[in-house]
Amino acid sequence: MRTQVAIIGAGPAGLLLSHLLRLQGVDSVIVEARSREYCENRIRAGVLEQGTVDTLNEAGLGARMQREGLVHHGIELLFERQLHRIDMTALTGGRSITVYSQHEVVRDLIAAGLEHEQPLYFEAEEVSLHDLQSDAPHVRFKHHGTEHRIDCDYVAGCDGFHGISRQSIPADVLRTYERVYPFAWLGILADAAPSKDELVYAHHERGFALFSMRSPTVTRLYLQCEPDEDLAQWPDERIWSELRTRFANTSGWSPNEGRITQKSVTPMRSFVTEPMQYGRLFLAGDAAHIVPPTGAKGMNLAVADVRVLSKALAARYRDARTDLLDGYSQTCLERIWRSEHFSYFMTNMLHPSQDDTPFGNRLKMSELKYVTSSHAAAQSLAENYVGLPFAD
Amino acid sequence: MRTQVAIIGAGPAGLLLSHLLRLQGVDSVIVEARSREYCENRIRAGVLEQGTVDTLNEAGLGARMQREGLVHHGIELLFERQLHRIDMTALTGGRSITVYSQHEVVRDLIAAGLEHEQPLYFEAEEVSLHDLQSDAPHVRFKHHGTEHRIDCDYVAGCDGFHGISRQSIPADVLRTYERVYPFAWLGILADAAPSKDELVYAHHERGFALFSMRSPTVTRLYLQCEPDEDLAQWPDERIWSELRTRFANTSGWSPNEGRITQKSVTPMRSFVTEPMQYGRLFLAGDAAHIVPPTGAKGMNLAVADVRVLSKALAARYRDARTDLLDGYSQTCLERIWRSEHFSYFMTNMLHPSQDDTPFGNRLKMSELKYVTSSHAAAQSLAENYVGLPFAD
Repeated sequence: MRTQVAIIGAGPAGLLLSHLLRLQGVDSVIVEARSREYCENRIRAGVLEQGTVDTLNEAGLGARMQREGLVHHGIELLFERQLHRIDMTALTGGRSITVYSQHEVVRDLIAAGLEHEQPLYFEAEEVSLHDLQSDAPHVRFKHHGTEHRIDCDYVAGCDGFHGISRQSIPADVLRTYERVYPFAWLGILADAAPSKDELVYAHHERGFALFSMRSPTVTRLYLQCEPDEDLAQWPDERIWSELRTRFANTSGWSPNEGRITQKSVTPMRSFVTEPMQYGRLFLAGDAAHIVPPTGAKGMNLAVADVRVLSKALAARYRDARTDLLDGYSQTCLERIWRSEHFSYFMTNMLHPSQDDTPFGNRLKMSELKYVTSSHAAAQSLAENYVGLPFAD
Repeated sequence: MRTQVAIIGAGPAGLLLSHLLRLQGVDSVIVEARSREYCENRIRAGVLEQGTVDTLNEAGLGARMQREGLVHHGIELLFERQLHRIDMTALTGGRSITVYSQHEVVRDLIAAGLEHEQPLYFEAEEVSLHDLQSDAPHVRFKHHGTEHRIDCDYVAGCDGFHGISRQSIPADVLRTYERVYPFAWLGILADAAPSKDELVYAHHERGFALFSMRSPTVTRLYLQCEPDEDLAQWPDERIWSELRTRFANTSGWSPNEGRITQKSVTPMRSFVTEPMQYGRLFLAGDAAHIVPPTGAKGMNLAVADVRVLSKALAARYRDARTDLLDGYSQTCLERIWRSEHFSYFMTNMLHPSQDDTPFGNRLKMSELKYVTSSHAAAQSLAENYVGLPFAD
């Protein structure tokens, strides 16, 4: 078969790219190694920046998000047993975030794709990319026993950190930047109504904790743990006890408790690859960069990447301009490094670490006090958290 | 002899403390190991925060500073060959800094002390502190061959990082926090008119450089170097060549060159001791904490300490209140840790270091771009640079 853009991966990046391209009259085919069910149920991020919400709404994808998403105007930082609110909306001239799970976004995107007869191959096997440096690249894969070949003009690598797209680029072409943190997050979902309308980021000497929510009846909670933490060592009562300790505060607030329906360990990594282009292959989202979840930037960066990529590809077909495609990597990397810095800043400030010196620990406490007492510092945190405006 | 407060050290902290105490009717005696000439010519910091200037003016010490000091309303950050101005005055509601050398402040303070017949012993030998945990401490020293003893109510340790005051506290009483940086500053004074009215902080892949000034005819310049740098390896032409490279920029600005009259290497260290009190001994200034010079905070923190200490001692004598003295350490440490964090932030952002990972280097560049493009981030830098308001 033949298409203009072959998209590898049906996560938020790949699915949104196909949708944005379709709106501009550019054809694409999506190839995904996992099943539809897997993609629609994969629990990931849940905080959408203002710009991500705007992008989804402008693309006509926001109906259910507007009904079911929870709009938040602030976050709380908890340290030394005191809650401190960062009023994001007041600090950013009216911007906010929306809590709406990544897998809900994926469901909306798949539904929109099927409605518009977007070619979309789930459970593709042996996906491989070819002739990426020529004008006529192609993609091969096997689907339910049949071999397929997609001839295309461009390939979009949206298949995540472990996907084949980045691996298809010769190693000596890429510069990679990485930091693996000496801790992880133990996350749970609990059948309990969220006891607060906003997220609570807690710094405690025993470790970071995060209070979040999935819906009006489901609370999402995280505890800093070891990277190789054994979930068998965490019976429910130990988790609740540790959460009570880390969230203890003078206001008397605490998370509601309920049946724990899921437990998992999330590793913490920062990763960037430069450039994000190799011939006719363009990387987007987790295929090119990873952030620790503390800044809630992962899915938002993927959306920012495909905004840029869709506009560049549309300009190529509409006006025969290639300057936007040529600038794709540099345009994206400005925002990526800002988000990488912010994610590192939030992670470092909120997590005690075995790598910290006593001096470094004191700096963190001073930083926490500063961002909750200086208008300028709170505003800086807030504008990054809700997401800086897009360059375009 | 007998006095109310024995002050160890005739640097800015000790001299200003004696002056502020005198204004409140509290007697003191200053004991200094060095000669007057040494103290008056020791080249150190040169940037006074707004609050430091206000303190000196309010104490009647500002006449010459107002005539000769250079008021600055901004600084420049130079990276990737571009100059970026931080308009401190606009960002902080009218605050500014004043370039006026520490040794000029010391001269003004010594002159004021002599005018008011402040007891002041230079070249004191074998200074020792005794009975610090009693109600009646005393200080012993030898002066021009004669042994002296000062009986007092309180001792102020203002004798710097290497002084005897902190060393007189049992080691197990103090918690110390320290970071020694893997680089230093090679500083020069040059007989050349400053080619710009404001300081220029330059990040270059070969190392940090700083353009500053002492007077309308003397330029002060610094180059990041090794901690054990050998000045013999730095003939004048090598220094100018390196400065030209690091300050290269698209605006065509460069420092004027001239005869180099002084060369020195300044090590870079962060250090804090807690608490700053031991019985009747109170530490102030460098005796209790050190910052790397990048944030221009050293002398300003010393002034902030003795503001708090002079008010606490005055309250003790005037109203028999000791709560301010009891809270001295904690009151000062809030500001100290804020300045330590800011100094670390500026130092880390502007200095490439052998300890940096490639990921860390990219974060620095993102941070530089951010503080020069975000109003909130620039304001945060500016409010710290001009100095946050005093708590009292």
